[in-house]
Amino acid sequence: MAATQRQLHLNAFLMEAGHHEAAWRLPESNPRADFDLQHWIELAQLAEDAKFDSLFLADGPALTGSGEYRPPGQLEPLTLLTALSQHTSRIGLIATVSSTYNDPYNLARRLASVDHVSGGRAGWNIVTSAGADEAANFGLLERPDHALRYERADEFLTVAKALWDSWETEAVLGDKDSGRYADPMRLHPIDHDGGHFRVAGPLNVERPPQGHPLLVQAGSSEDGKKFAARHAEAIFTAHQTYERAADFYRDVKSRALAAGRDPDSVLILPGIVPFIGSTQREAIELAQRFDDLRIPEFGLAQLAWNFETDPSVFELDSPLPDFILARPRLQGSQSRSDLIIELAVREQLTVREILSRLGGGRGHFTFVGTPDQVADTIVSWFEGGAADGFNIMAPALPSGLAAFIEHVLPILRSKGLFRDEYQGKTLREHYGLAAPPNQFHESDAHFASDIS
Amino acid sequence: MAATQRQLHLNAFLMEAGHHEAAWRLPESNPRADFDLQHWIELAQLAEDAKFDSLFLADGPALTGSGEYRPPGQLEPLTLLTALSQHTSRIGLIATVSSTYNDPYNLARRLASVDHVSGGRAGWNIVTSAGADEAANFGLLERPDHALRYERADEFLTVAKALWDSWETEAVLGDKDSGRYADPMRLHPIDHDGGHFRVAGPLNVERPPQGHPLLVQAGSSEDGKKFAARHAEAIFTAHQTYERAADFYRDVKSRALAAGRDPDSVLILPGIVPFIGSTQREAIELAQRFDDLRIPEFGLAQLAWNFETDPSVFELDSPLPDFILARPRLQGSQSRSDLIIELAVREQLTVREILSRLGGGRGHFTFVGTPDQVADTIVSWFEGGAADGFNIMAPALPSGLAAFIEHVLPILRSKGLFRDEYQGKTLREHYGLAAPPNQFHESDAHFASDIS
Repeated sequence: MAATQRQLHLNAFLMEAGHHEAAWRLPESNPRADFDLQHWIELAQLAEDAKFDSLFLADGPALTGSGEYRPPGQLEPLTLLTALSQHTSRIGLIATVSSTYNDPYNLARRLASVDHVSGGRAGWNIVTSAGADEAANFGLLERPDHALRYERADEFLTVAKALWDSWETEAVLGDKDSGRYADPMRLHPIDHDGGHFRVAGPLNVERPPQGHPLLVQAGSSEDGKKFAARHAEAIFTAHQTYERAADFYRDVKSRALAAGRDPDSVLILPGIVPFIGSTQREAIELAQRFDDLRIPEFGLAQLAWNFETDPSVFELDSPLPDFILARPRLQGSQSRSDLIIELAVREQLTVREILSRLGGGRGHFTFVGTPDQVADTIVSWFEGGAADGFNIMAPALPSGLAAFIEHVLPILRSKGLFRDEYQGKTLREHYGLAAPPNQFHESDAHFASDIS
Repeated sequence: MAATQRQLHLNAFLMEAGHHEAAWRLPESNPRADFDLQHWIELAQLAEDAKFDSLFLADGPALTGSGEYRPPGQLEPLTLLTALSQHTSRIGLIATVSSTYNDPYNLARRLASVDHVSGGRAGWNIVTSAGADEAANFGLLERPDHALRYERADEFLTVAKALWDSWETEAVLGDKDSGRYADPMRLHPIDHDGGHFRVAGPLNVERPPQGHPLLVQAGSSEDGKKFAARHAEAIFTAHQTYERAADFYRDVKSRALAAGRDPDSVLILPGIVPFIGSTQREAIELAQRFDDLRIPEFGLAQLAWNFETDPSVFELDSPLPDFILARPRLQGSQSRSDLIIELAVREQLTVREILSRLGGGRGHFTFVGTPDQVADTIVSWFEGGAADGFNIMAPALPSGLAAFIEHVLPILRSKGLFRDEYQGKTLREHYGLAAPPNQFHESDAHFASDIS
C-alpha cells in the first residue's frame, strides 16, 4: 500500500511543559519537566504512536533569560535524544546544535554515534548561535558577526560531510582468518585545510546508517536561506501568514534548484501553535487561559533580547518605538525580528498586544480554532504551495500534542495526507529523502550525478 | 546489613570484542562489536547483574591505528553510555573525554545531562590527549606540550566545577501562583577569566544529581599525579608488579593528603587482565590461544606509537634499542612508555616477547591462573596497600567478563570483600564518596570545611 498522494510531514517540536511561555503554570503541568526524563519519554512515545516523522528540540549553549519567569535551561539535546532513542524505535530525533561553538570532528562523531545507536534516526538542526550570552560562555567578548557565523557553518558542513563519508561501506573486512580487520585504503583522511578548520580525519566512527544524519536548518535571514539552499534537507521556519509562507517556500525551492539540487529534496515545515477547542469559542477560551498566565516582564525581556536592546525602551500601551520600526541591522536573530515588526505594523499592535501574540510560540503562527479549522489551515498551506509539512508546537505538553493527535490527525488521515503506519525505519525514509552518496566512493559519485 | 569491612571496588573496563588486541579474531567474537549496540547492552547488563561499581570506556578523538589489524574506531563514549543508561538502573557509567579538545561549557553540560538521565551514575575519566593524530583533527600542526595540556586540564576542572555548582539546589521555585519559576539570585554566573578559558555561566542545566559527576583520572606521569591529587576521586592505573603498584598507591595517597584531601576519598584501581582457567595449565593454554592470533605488525605499530618513533627501529628478536632505553622525553604517554621500558629491562625481554606481554592489555597487569590465584592476587594487592579495587579488563568480551563473574567473584564475596547487592543508587554511593559541597552555597561551604 504505497502512498499514491503527496504526503504531509509532521514534526513534533517539543519544549518542556509546552511552547506557551506560561505553560508551566497550568495546574496540570509539571514545572520540572525540563529535567524529568519521564516527561520526555512520554512525549516521544506519544508522537511515535501517532506516527510523526520526527521530534525536535531547540537549543542554545546559554541560560535562556534570567530564569525568573520561565525554565531557563534544559538537558543537552543530543544526550536527551540518545536516551529517548532507547524508548522508541521509529520516530526521527532532531537536535539543535551550534556550528559556531563546536568542533567539527567532535560533533560529526557525536551525530554519527547517535545515528548508530538510534538505527538511523538522527537529525541535526544547524544553528549559528545568535546570542551574546552564548558567546560569553566560549571566551568571546562579542558574538561573531552574522555573515562570519554562516561562513563558518558552511565550512563546518563541508568538513562534517567528508568525515561522515571517510569510512567506505566496504572498509571493514572483519576477516578472522587473515587477521585483516579493515582495508586502510577505504578509510579516508579528509585533509581539510580551510579558513576556519584544519582537520586530518578520518572519523573514528563508521559511516552512519543514514549516510549523513538528516540536515535541518531554521534561519530565514538572507545568509540563512543561502546556507539552506546549499545544505538543508528540511527547513523549520516561522511565518505569520499564508502569503509570507508561500513567498518563502517559492524562494527557497528556487534557490535549491539554482544550487543544483532537486527542490523536492528540501522540505519546508513552518511552525504552527494550535489552540484547539471543540468549538471556536472553546478554543478562544483555551488561548485566553494561557494568555492570562503570562507575566509581561518576561515577554518584554524576550522582546528586548530579540531587538538587542533594553526592556525599558518599550511602553506596553504604545506601538513599537520608531528606532525599532526602522529595522536596525542586528547581529542576532534578524529574520525573527523582521517578522515581529511586520506583524506589529500589519495589525497595528501595541507592545502589550505583541507580547500576547508572541506568548504562544515566539513568533510562530498561532492558530486558534476547531479541529476542522486547524486541519483546513494545514491542508491549505500544504496544497497551496506554502509547506511540505508542519512543525507542531503544542502550547502545553503533553496535553496540546495529545489534542492535536486525537482531534486533528484523524481528519488529515481521512484525506489520505498522513500515514497510518511508518513505511520506513530511518528518519530519511520518513521524509522520503535518499541517503547521500559517499564522496569517496566512485560508484556512489556516479549515482550522485544520476539523481541531481 | 551494612558492610563492616573495607570493600573492594570493581570497574568493568569494556573494549569492543575484548582487551586482547586479537580478541575480535576468536571464533565466538563479534568482529563488529564496536558499533553494535546490542553487544554493549549485553556487557552492561552482565556487569550490573554482578553488582560492579561501574563500567568504563577509554577513548580518544582520532582513529586508533590504521585499522588494518584491529577495530580503529568506536561510538563516542558519552553517547554510548547515555544509551546504556536506559538499559541499566544502578551501575556507574564512566566515559573518557578529552579536556584538551573540548570546551568546558559544552562538556560540563553534557556530563551534567548524562548524570540527570542516568539518575546520578555519570563519571568522567579526564584525559589530556597525548596523540599527534588527535591534534591533527583539531587544527593543530603539533600536539600541545605535556605540561601545557595538564595546565589546561586543571583550569578546565575549575571551570567545570563552578558550572556544575552554578544552580543552587533551592534555585527552582516553580511557584505557579506567583509565576516565579526560579530565584535568579541562586543561579550564579561564574565569570571565570583565566589563562585558557573565559566563561560567563551559569550553566543551562540544573546541578547534577551527584553534585559533580565522579572525576576519574588515568595518567601516571608526574604532571598526571599532581593533577590526580588535586581533582581525581578514582584513579585508573597500570602496574606490572605489586611493588610498583604499592609505590604508586603510597605516592598518590600522600599527595592527596598534602593537597588537603582525605586520602580515602581518592580510590586507586589498577588494571588487571585475567586469563582464567580451571587449572593453571588451562589458563596458560587460554592465554596462548590469544597470543597465537596476534599480528606482530600491529604490536610494532603500537610500540612505535608509544615511543613516538617508527616501527622500523625495532627488531623482533633483539632487545629494545638503546635510544629507547635511554628514556627519551616524550610529549605523549610518558608513564606508559616508562612502564614498558621497566618491564623489558626487568625481565630482559626481546621485542617479540614485549609484544606478547603487551598484547592482552597494552601494559596493564596480565595475570594467567585459576580463579583462586586471581582472587588471591586481587586480595593481596587490596589488603597489602596497593589497590582500593580493580579495573577488570577481560581479554575477550563478553566471555572473559562472564568467567571472572562466575568463578572469581564468588571467592571475593565469600571473603566479605564485595557486595552481594547494591546499597546505593549513584556511582558516588557505590564508591563510598560523598557528593561535593556547592561552592556557591553557604551552608554547603560550611559542610565542606567539616569534612576536609
